[in-house]
Amino acid sequence: MSSNDLPQGMAHNTISLLLGHPDPTTLLTPELGNVMLSVVSSPQCITALQYGPEQGTRSLIDFLVEKIQREQGISISPANLMVVAGSTHAVDMLARLYAKPGGVVLVEAPSYVDALHIFRDYRIELYSIPTDENGLIPDELAKRVAQLHANGKIPSFLYTIPNYHNPTGCTLPEARRLEIITLARQYGFLIVEDDVYRDLSFEGAVPASFYALADGNGVMSIGSFSKTLAPGLRLGWLVGSEEAIQRCVNCGTTQMGGGANPFAAHIVAEYCRSGYWEEHISHVRSLYKMRRDVALAALDKHMPAGVRWTHPAGGFFIWLALPQDVFAQDVKRLALSEGVALAAGEGFFVNPVDGEHHLRLAYSCAAPDDIDAGIRILGQVIQRARMIE
Amino acid sequence: MSSNDLPQGMAHNTISLLLGHPDPTTLLTPELGNVMLSVVSSPQCITALQYGPEQGTRSLIDFLVEKIQREQGISISPANLMVVAGSTHAVDMLARLYAKPGGVVLVEAPSYVDALHIFRDYRIELYSIPTDENGLIPDELAKRVAQLHANGKIPSFLYTIPNYHNPTGCTLPEARRLEIITLARQYGFLIVEDDVYRDLSFEGAVPASFYALADGNGVMSIGSFSKTLAPGLRLGWLVGSEEAIQRCVNCGTTQMGGGANPFAAHIVAEYCRSGYWEEHISHVRSLYKMRRDVALAALDKHMPAGVRWTHPAGGFFIWLALPQDVFAQDVKRLALSEGVALAAGEGFFVNPVDGEHHLRLAYSCAAPDDIDAGIRILGQVIQRARMIE
Repeated sequence: MSSNDLPQGMAHNTISLLLGHPDPTTLLTPELGNVMLSVVSSPQCITALQYGPEQGTRSLIDFLVEKIQREQGISISPANLMVVAGSTHAVDMLARLYAKPGGVVLVEAPSYVDALHIFRDYRIELYSIPTDENGLIPDELAKRVAQLHANGKIPSFLYTIPNYHNPTGCTLPEARRLEIITLARQYGFLIVEDDVYRDLSFEGAVPASFYALADGNGVMSIGSFSKTLAPGLRLGWLVGSEEAIQRCVNCGTTQMGGGANPFAAHIVAEYCRSGYWEEHISHVRSLYKMRRDVALAALDKHMPAGVRWTHPAGGFFIWLALPQDVFAQDVKRLALSEGVALAAGEGFFVNPVDGEHHLRLAYSCAAPDDIDAGIRILGQVIQRARMIE
Repeated sequence: MSSNDLPQGMAHNTISLLLGHPDPTTLLTPELGNVMLSVVSSPQCITALQYGPEQGTRSLIDFLVEKIQREQGISISPANLMVVAGSTHAVDMLARLYAKPGGVVLVEAPSYVDALHIFRDYRIELYSIPTDENGLIPDELAKRVAQLHANGKIPSFLYTIPNYHNPTGCTLPEARRLEIITLARQYGFLIVEDDVYRDLSFEGAVPASFYALADGNGVMSIGSFSKTLAPGLRLGWLVGSEEAIQRCVNCGTTQMGGGANPFAAHIVAEYCRSGYWEEHISHVRSLYKMRRDVALAALDKHMPAGVRWTHPAGGFFIWLALPQDVFAQDVKRLALSEGVALAAGEGFFVNPVDGEHHLRLAYSCAAPDDIDAGIRILGQVIQRARMIE
């Protein structure tokens, strides 16, 4: 969601725990500023201003391949990766190319609201799989897929956010990933892994990706510069089999538009190759970890009995479960009138009613004092919302 | 198509009359360079690096609205325009939102190869309407739409390139536009006007747009910075009714990604507001007009009898009709072996066989001497291709 359009009812002094945006103070670092100045002053900028190679700017592909190989201990080649215009581009392209018309896609309950929106724009039939504090439940997936197949409905892919999930903050353990890969092979569905928070781990190692665990077979993995560098550059990447990447490179939108955002991609390639991104990731990881800690401490202090919440090991979000007599819409409305914005749960579910006792709290772009104050107000508001019948 | 990937068989010293790219020497002007330096050094760059408003960067919207009103003498408001990530983004979004599943779309024969590719990716049923040297033939459109309706096939929209058509270079006269608008109203289809060459008029006035002639009713009009500024910035715009623009602003991809390329959009807005774009358009218009003149003179001089070609009043392309005993694929292959690259006609047609005696020649990014030499070689090659049976 946009940064400049304030949601309805939200004043400029509102404490926003609403949007999964990176903190604005992290965006224009001196290092990025210098790289931008250097690229726009150099003759290579001519190449950056022309149509780019469909697969993406080669220096950026090479950097990402090397990083993924090094960090994930897997072997991929440049033919396994394409640059995309943010994860949006990847989700959109995969929906178009891999979900058959009127096709079936599996998603987590809850899942990322805007991805659900894209799937709905494609008139894709969505089936959601229950999750718990460890993410997607493989047994539930097995049951649901078996049912669907029995009814002649063949899912094209599972869309999953395995690390520091949006909206729940949860991370899927490796054992569950392996079970899900087994199911995917048994039933022939692709796994689309939206892994844009992977680099924002607060507690050391992140589990191996689906792509790594499946040896690259039947998995498409999406990464992004939006959470750890700058969303306005609109850049991410897609990893998959050579054949799948070639299919995306050869599709109509890629052929018509050329490679994703060549101008921004040249800047980001130069920035990354200078080693600045790794340093920056380490900085923003500490920043968001501190905010997560402030948020969890504030929740412990201010939440009334009966409210439960997740304990994310990375990323931007905490997911709250309210008591059954408290409705998220009431809390959202009351909180906004007290100057605190946050997201009610309905939009994150295929069946909105499943989210009526849930809230998503984003700690990524609020100052620590605001996080504490916002959660204190939220606690009061939940008490008041309980009185509403 | 990409600038960096050379098509198969094309060596680095090949004369390329193949791609509809702007001339690389026009891309990095001192003015654009200075604006880029100024934007990346200013605090507004923080906004440019964050998610942007879904409708696009406001200063760019305001500039474009003012320009369109001034130049086209029509009244539109900012609610009638959104910034898009190049015309690709607009075509893709309109295909997704406006063509029903398995829907029907009308296109010109020939039409823009990559747009056809996008429609096919959506599994849209394409019906093509014959054109002549004045573009789309309204009587043929009337016949075809009546037939389709009689068969229960209801076209969602007509995709047309009214000015300096790709691939033909032809321009649709105002009278035909009015007839087409009447048909669109009668049969309830939308007109999608891909008007990315509008600013590249060589002979004075360009006809009024479909959008202007229809008073904005039932028309979506696409513009782009790719032909007159720089494709690598991936920016264009979409004009339509408030309701249609709102539908595009509210769709899943726009909600997920935020506004189109905020970083590039801030730079382009600043560049345009400084008055540089108008000057630049005037410069590139002269450049391409001169190349068009060189190409037409060379065709007069070098083409064997029986070859016909269009006389574009703007844009990047000339369309050649070969005698019936000469096949475009033979000419393309022989020309490439002689160091000249150009596009055979098949890909521009829904029924590829309709293009087997056609060639598209792009004069936009070859130097005048190369244009002349390339067309001389082409003439010889066509003579030789005639011998092949």
